[in-house]
Amino acid sequence: MQLIHLFIDAMGGDHAPEAPVKGSIEALRHDANLKITLAGTLDQIQPYLLGSDDVIDRINLVDAPDIISNHDAPAMAIRQKKKSAIVLGMLSVREGETDGFVSAGSTGAVLVGGMLRLGRIPGVERPAIAPLLPNGKGHFLLIDCGANVDCKPEYLQQFGVMGNAYMQKFKQIPTPRIGLIYVGEEVEKGNQLTKDTFPLMQQSKYNFVGNVEARYITADKADVLVCDGFDGNIILKFMEGVSSTILGMIKEELMADTRSKIGALMVKPAFRRVKKTMDYTEVGGAPLLGVMGAVVKAHGSCNAYAFASAIKQASVMVRTKVATTIMNQI
Amino acid sequence: MQLIHLFIDAMGGDHAPEAPVKGSIEALRHDANLKITLAGTLDQIQPYLLGSDDVIDRINLVDAPDIISNHDAPAMAIRQKKKSAIVLGMLSVREGETDGFVSAGSTGAVLVGGMLRLGRIPGVERPAIAPLLPNGKGHFLLIDCGANVDCKPEYLQQFGVMGNAYMQKFKQIPTPRIGLIYVGEEVEKGNQLTKDTFPLMQQSKYNFVGNVEARYITADKADVLVCDGFDGNIILKFMEGVSSTILGMIKEELMADTRSKIGALMVKPAFRRVKKTMDYTEVGGAPLLGVMGAVVKAHGSCNAYAFASAIKQASVMVRTKVATTIMNQI
Repeated sequence: MQLIHLFIDAMGGDHAPEAPVKGSIEALRHDANLKITLAGTLDQIQPYLLGSDDVIDRINLVDAPDIISNHDAPAMAIRQKKKSAIVLGMLSVREGETDGFVSAGSTGAVLVGGMLRLGRIPGVERPAIAPLLPNGKGHFLLIDCGANVDCKPEYLQQFGVMGNAYMQKFKQIPTPRIGLIYVGEEVEKGNQLTKDTFPLMQQSKYNFVGNVEARYITADKADVLVCDGFDGNIILKFMEGVSSTILGMIKEELMADTRSKIGALMVKPAFRRVKKTMDYTEVGGAPLLGVMGAVVKAHGSCNAYAFASAIKQASVMVRTKVATTIMNQI
Repeated sequence: MQLIHLFIDAMGGDHAPEAPVKGSIEALRHDANLKITLAGTLDQIQPYLLGSDDVIDRINLVDAPDIISNHDAPAMAIRQKKKSAIVLGMLSVREGETDGFVSAGSTGAVLVGGMLRLGRIPGVERPAIAPLLPNGKGHFLLIDCGANVDCKPEYLQQFGVMGNAYMQKFKQIPTPRIGLIYVGEEVEKGNQLTKDTFPLMQQSKYNFVGNVEARYITADKADVLVCDGFDGNIILKFMEGVSSTILGMIKEELMADTRSKIGALMVKPAFRRVKKTMDYTEVGGAPLLGVMGAVVKAHGSCNAYAFASAIKQASVMVRTKVATTIMNQI
């Protein structure tokens, strides 16, 4: 099996460096063919490496003293903080020293770094952030979830190409169904963007299943759902919020009276399973599709387990050659 | 108390004429100061009027033989089907014969009819569809939910005005919090539309609380949430879909094993309460704000109970003079 080498940002995210470092150790334990370069402030990283003797030979440490926070303007940060884990990581993948990059840090910086330091796949207009989200039965890819907040039709058509490649390789779906999110029942059938995008997607080689109304986003009508990054981010964040609201309401109602409380104890495992299913960070992180390597943006608040999932996700992307497939299909 | 006269489309919606007619009867029973004009195909309406002797003196029947379906192009339907309940209803309100109009039929036709036959409140650029949606604690107004799929910043600023007036009058909130939905954490702080809208809303007289991220839509950060009609419709329909998905998952998990099944029986009432809370049709329908009268679009699939709620909603809008307030505040 191919040896994979991933570059890891040890300093990004709410629980850094603990979550990225512990997540890296866990990923290494589960994958004997994985090697990791951990970059960040070394004396902050090292304490968390204690007890990792079983995998330490596959950990390479790189000093990356510049820190990019979520408050830094991304373009400026990438330009100025040359010794940040994100910049060093993107350059490392570009140079072919590593195969992919994982970070739980600033999404904006990962995106700009991906565009400007790693570089787009030739032919790709705009890379996109594409998490796998739960529907009732499994998962679907939502693309774009925030990289591009003002899109042209050509970008959306390409999001379909990239999503198609990802689901073919990563999820091993031979002919993924590609849908275009739209507003269907009211006055206009879609807005100007979706009206202009539809014919482009129809003429594409992938299996375009047409418009999918927002009501059916989680109803397994498509494997890949394409939309503008502004809308995608709304859907993503709103799903988090409304899931949280509903599950919170249920919890509160369950505590309302004795009968419910007793019943609540009995249904707790079932309830937990649903909560876990709706938590998309269980799957890993959000791939950045359209750049010259496997880049995964882990959720900012992820713990070690979720970070390990994100690393695993990047490994699978490398092994199944997602980026190469995109390059061939664009 | 003021006598209110509402014009009702008896033929619109999946369960017409039964739901609109029975809903009208129910509404009349609950409000002695309400009078209703029921319009549609009379011999289809009449069977459902049996047993309504207690309120029949407050029902006026109008023959409206033209039927507008959800498949009719709205503008053409309004132009050509002059004897439809929607056209007759809008003209009736315009003439002052009735105070408001309720329909569960084609949203597009209600919107175009509202614009072209009833007319906009002077100064209003674009009327908007504005349902009340549940958050964890009560309800918030989401505006616009589908009337305007390509917006200018001025429209959004005005959605704030209209939403503010509605919540002041209908919900009796003295100083509603008006928020602008946006994408916050990633590369761009919002898209071009929201960036241009923000300063307009800041300069407005209403209590603008700033940007509200999609994650917090149901987190009671604002009483009115403003967005583009395309995004609003996505949020509305997606909320329906994801609530349905989660509640369906829970049901399925509860049936997974015996312990869960037993617990499920005990928590059934609690579960039902949550389902009911998340069902926004419980509140009534979606007002069309910005036209010269109280117009409520009831959900297409509504039953008699929900239709009666929509009628009640229109009555309250008339009594609290929502349209007049919008006219004063625009």
